[in-house]
Amino acid sequence: MSALAGAPVRSALVTGARGFIGRHLCRHLALNGWQVAGLGHGHWPEAEAMRWGVSRWVNGGVTAANLDALYPSTGALSTVFHLAGGSSVGAAIANPREDFDRTVTTTADLMEWLRLNAPATAVVAVSSAAVYGAGHEGPIAEDADLHPYSPYGHHKLMMESLCRSYGASFGTRATVARLFSVYGAGLSKQLLWDICSRLHKGVRSLELGGSGNELRDWVAVDDVVCALERLADEAHPAVPAFNVGTGLATPVRDVAELVLKAWSSTNGGTAPALSFSGASRQGDPFSLCADVGRLAHLSWRARHGLEAGLARYVAWFQQSQMDVS
Amino acid sequence: MSALAGAPVRSALVTGARGFIGRHLCRHLALNGWQVAGLGHGHWPEAEAMRWGVSRWVNGGVTAANLDALYPSTGALSTVFHLAGGSSVGAAIANPREDFDRTVTTTADLMEWLRLNAPATAVVAVSSAAVYGAGHEGPIAEDADLHPYSPYGHHKLMMESLCRSYGASFGTRATVARLFSVYGAGLSKQLLWDICSRLHKGVRSLELGGSGNELRDWVAVDDVVCALERLADEAHPAVPAFNVGTGLATPVRDVAELVLKAWSSTNGGTAPALSFSGASRQGDPFSLCADVGRLAHLSWRARHGLEAGLARYVAWFQQSQMDVS
Repeated sequence: MSALAGAPVRSALVTGARGFIGRHLCRHLALNGWQVAGLGHGHWPEAEAMRWGVSRWVNGGVTAANLDALYPSTGALSTVFHLAGGSSVGAAIANPREDFDRTVTTTADLMEWLRLNAPATAVVAVSSAAVYGAGHEGPIAEDADLHPYSPYGHHKLMMESLCRSYGASFGTRATVARLFSVYGAGLSKQLLWDICSRLHKGVRSLELGGSGNELRDWVAVDDVVCALERLADEAHPAVPAFNVGTGLATPVRDVAELVLKAWSSTNGGTAPALSFSGASRQGDPFSLCADVGRLAHLSWRARHGLEAGLARYVAWFQQSQMDVS
Repeated sequence: MSALAGAPVRSALVTGARGFIGRHLCRHLALNGWQVAGLGHGHWPEAEAMRWGVSRWVNGGVTAANLDALYPSTGALSTVFHLAGGSSVGAAIANPREDFDRTVTTTADLMEWLRLNAPATAVVAVSSAAVYGAGHEGPIAEDADLHPYSPYGHHKLMMESLCRSYGASFGTRATVARLFSVYGAGLSKQLLWDICSRLHKGVRSLELGGSGNELRDWVAVDDVVCALERLADEAHPAVPAFNVGTGLATPVRDVAELVLKAWSSTNGGTAPALSFSGASRQGDPFSLCADVGRLAHLSWRARHGLEAGLARYVAWFQQSQMDVS
């Protein structure tokens, strides 16, 4: 994965670069010799963006105007990693119209801009296991039935459809990466963040939603960004889809216990009692586990185990709290 | 199909009311006792709109602002017939971003407005056989694989997905009508209009695209509007889809010959020689024929035969040319 001496510099645009996965991706690409520009929302001081490998950052939406400003001459843009979009099922249910704009309209604008300005550029469209929806047992292959039932999953599938539409009618090359449960340093939402935040407050008991038996495929962000870079070479007008996961399904209960264990080992304290409410969240499938055969054909393997990965997550969380305080 | 004496007045909003199918639908609904408002693009003099059964017309897009203006108090709106959207494969290929806005963004805005303002309202979302795409032989059932390959078909499928998304997460009731090849008075585009326009110019030979063997399911607009009204009662959060066609596949060559025959019979002249270029149009499936079993369960049948329907179309075309000159 190191940059090849003498190889031409590849130029990447990362939409949503300032997000959790976006930052890790930018740093990974930069370390591997890519020239990286970023587009997304939020003030990002130049020095900090540079530390993440982003040589140019534009604070704004994925619009033709911002793309024009970034690429007045577009011959050099080899790949767009399209990470911009809604970021959770809950937020999408709370405001479905905004999630639509963030995920679907940005893709419509991006694909149209590429059609008109940079038709040779490859797209890596970052989708989600949420497109599969509920009712699956065991590892889910990419050609499984797609029955999203949250607005988040529906919108991600529309994003994929836009890529297929432009591929079929205009030859735009893209590949779809369906991410499973991505975790790692910087993830400040969802289950792991929630558990750590409550442990940080010193709770004595920890009740989580659901039954604890829900299965998820947890994949380290360091593995994910390697996969995304690899998938840039698979872009094609037929828009192949690839699951990005480990192929291992872990019950939520086990994940929570691993977090508790890592937390206790750092402060020597007693782990709080763990329980589950039994109430499942709206839009939450019971089992989401990747069949990773297609990605394995590209010689990609997840290299980070869950227990060590969660211990690193806990260490990052505790460090981030010390930085804040 | 007559209005029931004493039945409560049902209130319909027809988006895209001024279009070909929209006008026929408004007139049909008004004749059957509905109170009809219309929303869409273009100046429509009040007297003319009233002739089509539209008691209130707003010239503008399907936006929250226009919907708010039409329904400051929304308790009374029973059904939205959502016909607004892109209107042809060719236009969608020429300007895919605009087609996306017309078909998909309007639906996102409509569904969100209903969620927030009129959650009990039913939606009849007017989709297209283009969602099925190519590769189908014989009558296509609603649960067939959906493989659109034109932007037009992709966007119609996204419209359907938005209805499903709002149904699953918010209980919004909708039904999807997948229209096959609709024709009738007022259709001023596509094959029939093209043939008549050339005959009107007095061509001696008539070359059409494709092989002439392409199969389509031609359904009279008068039958379609009856189906759409019927489907309002089928709206459900699970968003059932219904094909609207006749179940009969007719080769393009036969349709063209029927038009030539009808034309010649009105002016006694010799029909021009008919030929086909052999070149198929981009985004054009070979066969699109409806399995109409699901709609037949609702006691709906297409009542207009093709030969008589095409003769009426030719008569309308000739009359419209006299009105112009």
